[in-house]
Amino acid sequence: MVKVGIIGATGYAGAEIVRLLYSHPEAEIVWYGSKSYVDEKFASIYRNMFTLVEDKCLDDNILELSKQVDVIFTATPQGYLAGVITEEILSNCKIIDLSADFRLKDVSTYEQWYKIKHLSPEFIDEAVYGLCEINRDKIAGKRLVANPGCYTTCSILSAYPLVKEGLIDPFTLIIDAKSGTSGAGRGAKLPNLYCEVNENIKAYGVTNHRHTPEIEEQLGYACGQEIMINFTPHLVPMNRGILVTAYASLNEIDGKLPTKETLMAAYEKAYGKEFFIRLLDYGTCPETKWVEGSNFVDISFVIDERTGRVVMMAALDNLVKGAAGQAVQNMNILFGLDEKMGLDFAPMFP
Amino acid sequence: MVKVGIIGATGYAGAEIVRLLYSHPEAEIVWYGSKSYVDEKFASIYRNMFTLVEDKCLDDNILELSKQVDVIFTATPQGYLAGVITEEILSNCKIIDLSADFRLKDVSTYEQWYKIKHLSPEFIDEAVYGLCEINRDKIAGKRLVANPGCYTTCSILSAYPLVKEGLIDPFTLIIDAKSGTSGAGRGAKLPNLYCEVNENIKAYGVTNHRHTPEIEEQLGYACGQEIMINFTPHLVPMNRGILVTAYASLNEIDGKLPTKETLMAAYEKAYGKEFFIRLLDYGTCPETKWVEGSNFVDISFVIDERTGRVVMMAALDNLVKGAAGQAVQNMNILFGLDEKMGLDFAPMFP
Amino acid sequence: MVKVGIIGATGYAGAEIVRLLYSHPEAEIVWYGSKSYVDEKFASIYRNMFTLVEDKCLDDNILELSKQVDVIFTATPQGYLAGVITEEILSNCKIIDLSADFRLKDVSTYEQWYKIKHLSPEFIDEAVYGLCEINRDKIAGKRLVANPGCYTTCSILSAYPLVKEGLIDPFTLIIDAKSGTSGAGRGAKLPNLYCEVNENIKAYGVTNHRHTPEIEEQLGYACGQEIMINFTPHLVPMNRGILVTAYASLNEIDGKLPTKETLMAAYEKAYGKEFFIRLLDYGTCPETKWVEGSNFVDISFVIDERTGRVVMMAALDNLVKGAAGQAVQNMNILFGLDEKMGLDFAPMFP
Amino acid sequence: MVKVGIIGATGYAGAEIVRLLYSHPEAEIVWYGSKSYVDEKFASIYRNMFTLVEDKCLDDNILELSKQVDVIFTATPQGYLAGVITEEILSNCKIIDLSADFRLKDVSTYEQWYKIKHLSPEFIDEAVYGLCEINRDKIAGKRLVANPGCYTTCSILSAYPLVKEGLIDPFTLIIDAKSGTSGAGRGAKLPNLYCEVNENIKAYGVTNHRHTPEIEEQLGYACGQEIMINFTPHLVPMNRGILVTAYASLNEIDGKLPTKETLMAAYEKAYGKEFFIRLLDYGTCPETKWVEGSNFVDISFVIDERTGRVVMMAALDNLVKGAAGQAVQNMNILFGLDEKMGLDFAPMFP
Repeated sequence: MVKVGIIGATGYAGAEIVRLLYSHPEAEIVWYGSKSYVDEKFASIYRNMFTLVEDKCLDDNILELSKQVDVIFTATPQGYLAGVITEEILSNCKIIDLSADFRLKDVSTYEQWYKIKHLSPEFIDEAVYGLCEINRDKIAGKRLVANPGCYTTCSILSAYPLVKEGLIDPFTLIIDAKSGTSGAGRGAKLPNLYCEVNENIKAYGVTNHRHTPEIEEQLGYACGQEIMINFTPHLVPMNRGILVTAYASLNEIDGKLPTKETLMAAYEKAYGKEFFIRLLDYGTCPETKWVEGSNFVDISFVIDERTGRVVMMAALDNLVKGAAGQAVQNMNILFGLDEKMGLDFAPMFP
Repeated sequence: MVKVGIIGATGYAGAEIVRLLYSHPEAEIVWYGSKSYVDEKFASIYRNMFTLVEDKCLDDNILELSKQVDVIFTATPQGYLAGVITEEILSNCKIIDLSADFRLKDVSTYEQWYKIKHLSPEFIDEAVYGLCEINRDKIAGKRLVANPGCYTTCSILSAYPLVKEGLIDPFTLIIDAKSGTSGAGRGAKLPNLYCEVNENIKAYGVTNHRHTPEIEEQLGYACGQEIMINFTPHLVPMNRGILVTAYASLNEIDGKLPTKETLMAAYEKAYGKEFFIRLLDYGTCPETKWVEGSNFVDISFVIDERTGRVVMMAALDNLVKGAAGQAVQNMNILFGLDEKMGLDFAPMFP
Repeated sequence: MVKVGIIGATGYAGAEIVRLLYSHPEAEIVWYGSKSYVDEKFASIYRNMFTLVEDKCLDDNILELSKQVDVIFTATPQGYLAGVITEEILSNCKIIDLSADFRLKDVSTYEQWYKIKHLSPEFIDEAVYGLCEINRDKIAGKRLVANPGCYTTCSILSAYPLVKEGLIDPFTLIIDAKSGTSGAGRGAKLPNLYCEVNENIKAYGVTNHRHTPEIEEQLGYACGQEIMINFTPHLVPMNRGILVTAYASLNEIDGKLPTKETLMAAYEKAYGKEFFIRLLDYGTCPETKWVEGSNFVDISFVIDERTGRVVMMAALDNLVKGAAGQAVQNMNILFGLDEKMGLDFAPMFP
Repeated sequence: MVKVGIIGATGYAGAEIVRLLYSHPEAEIVWYGSKSYVDEKFASIYRNMFTLVEDKCLDDNILELSKQVDVIFTATPQGYLAGVITEEILSNCKIIDLSADFRLKDVSTYEQWYKIKHLSPEFIDEAVYGLCEINRDKIAGKRLVANPGCYTTCSILSAYPLVKEGLIDPFTLIIDAKSGTSGAGRGAKLPNLYCEVNENIKAYGVTNHRHTPEIEEQLGYACGQEIMINFTPHLVPMNRGILVTAYASLNEIDGKLPTKETLMAAYEKAYGKEFFIRLLDYGTCPETKWVEGSNFVDISFVIDERTGRVVMMAALDNLVKGAAGQAVQNMNILFGLDEKMGLDFAPMFP
């Protein structure tokens, strides 16, 4: 039984870890950390867990916590973990960080996009980028996992096989992403009020959203060069779900556009054996509702012969595969458990 | 391993049985019946099940089906099961009927409210009303279970303890119910279009909704007399969930209104040991979101000293405890399995 | 041209006054009061008014304001107007108050339900309750109008004719009301976040919502006695709209239930000539969507012969007829303008 | 007073014309055409118009109708008008067609994208493309106006100034559009059911949506060459609104990217005097909610120095500026009325 502590248990992502681990046969939460609700019962904050969780929320004491558990999930704002992490803590337990603190290898890129100083750059090298389907082998055995961002997971997975196989020009990549509102967190802010979000759609963070360098770095590894892309997130009036629509120019092969079979082969090569990645039939477009509540990512693409571009699409649940679910998947890998454990259930529809 | 057949597998309730049984360790679906989609892959109709279910939909042949399975779920329109059920079928397997065909003991009441002739009244006596928490002992061993309606489950459970203990006057009972739109089914009808339902709320079936006599019959058993109530359903712009707000005059005890402790004791007596019924703290109102996707029912009440009434409230997921979940719970009872099997997971929030 | 000042212009109700007066041919806003956004352009807060309103928000100085305008709308929290109103102000201009400060004639009732001390009880007698269709004649010529609450307008109008004509027993009246989320205001509070409201319905303020005594007082006038009722509000996942479903026992006439013709006659007598009240055909239920954005109230009823009760229903837009629209209607009455001026447009569907 | 007939009055676009003309001082509807609801009262189908419209729906007899009116709006499926239009009809009255029949100048393009034969190609030359802000001068005096598509209006207006001024490379143009569900019409189809659309987002018509050639043709005129672009529509869980996010590579000027001032000047040149086009401050992103219910289009852009691209954004209400509102605007132009007549009201928020 893996002993788990959560710091930031009362944010949407933290609470989703609680929901998922309730059904995990080999994990047990022993610490519900929440600065905002110390001494309140977790189930009085998230009443979906009423009668299922009896514990109270505890203050965030990561050193003390590290002595009591096998793994800590930090579902915290950017900068928190970098501000408190120490060698002692990491020698006590493993950490899966849902923030961006250890995702980017280049400190200056982090500081430029996040506008904060990185307080523990010495742990960046050790951290592994926890995109399970791509880095599975590198994750096992590590102490510190940087769990990918929600937009990032969806964006990278949609384009990765075509970038890796050289089938598209990565410099032409344009990612137009749409997210449900839980991605904005549970903070009581005016733009997240029901009446401001409902019956509305807007872009935000245009040309400067923080997930951009994360996507560029990981796709850059896939093609072996530094790339720059356009990434535009949008806020959609729904609770959960991310849809990515990505555009890129196809690289001609012998003077001709690659066929859909060639592209499908690239996707099959990358994901053919992956349980959580579902390659849809050609012509079927992903919909966020079909993966809601689950750890699945649905992916497909369409070739536009007229313009020589490919449109890549992917859908996932931002709180599951985009956050808590992938975090649990990483935990399973770290502790040698079946990677699907606690995550092998069907999406909910409708 | 219980072998399961579903007739009407591609309605919302039928598909929810498929979702739930995917995670059930002791049940296996061998027949996905769907008149509308014969020979099409189930997962092409409900793409949440893509890669998880490979089977194709079959035509509805209940006799043939009864020979291959241990239990049939009929998630079909009113009148279907009554039109095809035979002794031979019932001797082959058990049936859990999600329609209203065998819920009412009085044929004339059925025919009056449903405006159709009942074609198999001879099986009505044998059928057991599958409200698990109240009829658990009567369900075990039966061949034919009439799974309660969604509104009915929520309405009965909210008022049952107070009616049974004589704490309210059942003739003053007024039930104002609100339902998500999945309760209207997957039929392509204009009133169920997104733009007709969204940003809208309305009552419907006022004074004549078919769940009324079902509520009256069951609560009548609880108080030992025939009662008549008001029941008004409303359509709410959300996918899932039923909220019941019920009003009744409190019966005075020794010239005084009963206290909240007295009422709470009645609820505790009825539901104190029930896993799927959660009695909220006094003053906390149920919300449909806190039970979404799960088999839980959240219940609470408020006494109004000014008017001498009690306001009873209950929330459930109409597709789970209000349909498919309770059906699986009934299956577990019928086959001697742990009643929570396949249903012991947390509600999803948000 | 009526010169208008608004205090609280950047709440949802205040901003709705701005929207409506943009199309009013005889009114001109000269003061956009907003404590929170002093010196910011109104149209930068409510960007629907971009290019249509150039003014900046001003601080709330009601005395100074009263010298510049013919009428002030106070769309402010309870207690604000009672705390600042003076004879001097009222001698300068008229005031239409959208708060509850001057709605209740009994100070102790106000203080008991609102939990604040009333600081200007001396103006209560002078104030007129601005439910236009009922108090039209009393409003003309007044200096101070207490604009009714949103739930109250809908509740009173649904039951008023039957109470007035003695067709129902007012002590059996139970009002179950459902509101869109704009009724909760624009404050950045956790329960109003998109993800908390969306896909959810709940009751709140059960037995103690502040609109209760307001309904009781006004319906009490209609039947000539003090009454007590049950009123339960619910929060619905939509922006706008209130639906009331009200229940009461019919008074028998000569030993028989009154007919629907008798009830309809009562409604016709009360509202037959009212432009903004639409009596639907018997059997048609009101829907909030059919009045969205407009000043209309749709009303209908159903008799339940079985239980001897009548179910009364009404729908309105909480920000228009429930707040800003009725306030403009009151302004039109106060200044001798056509009562429909600026309000004679069709609801928006879908 | 302009006499108006509508064919297809009971679709969402047709009914929106009815809503708008209710407030138009110089137009009067004399014919509510609707094949589906002949002899039913229009206000029984669209109950927002209850008490405001007393007329019944009539069958679609365009020749007869043309003798009674000054202008006909055809809010009909593709192919209808091309199948019935004659010289006689056009000599009787003007026609504003909301379908695609006369939008494309090249018949073969029409037939290829719409998969139907064009039955009246002889009227194509005469028809004017009714994008008011761009073709205003060409519209006046015409008999036949092809009212632009909803996606098209939003897409063209977002990119037109930059294409026209040569500031972007039109062959790099990628338009990612998001639409509310009313754009799908009022047909009772499964994919448009509430539970299928709600809490969901998906792309559709990828690489083959019919608005593509319409955008290409009009932007092609702007830059003087035939272009091909990528256009991807998405279905968003909201009633109304289209948001366009468009990407293109900036053309360097003297080896440097054009500045935001240069781009803004292009937009100002094209739209600076347009009432219905609102150019937002740099850095402010359009939101569909801020234009809901109105004829406004909100437009802005962001330059990405890193990738050398510009992100253009535009928002409108698909039923107003995207359909009925622009149709009324065209009517105003045709009849020499103030172009804003009946359309000069504020968007509704929230």
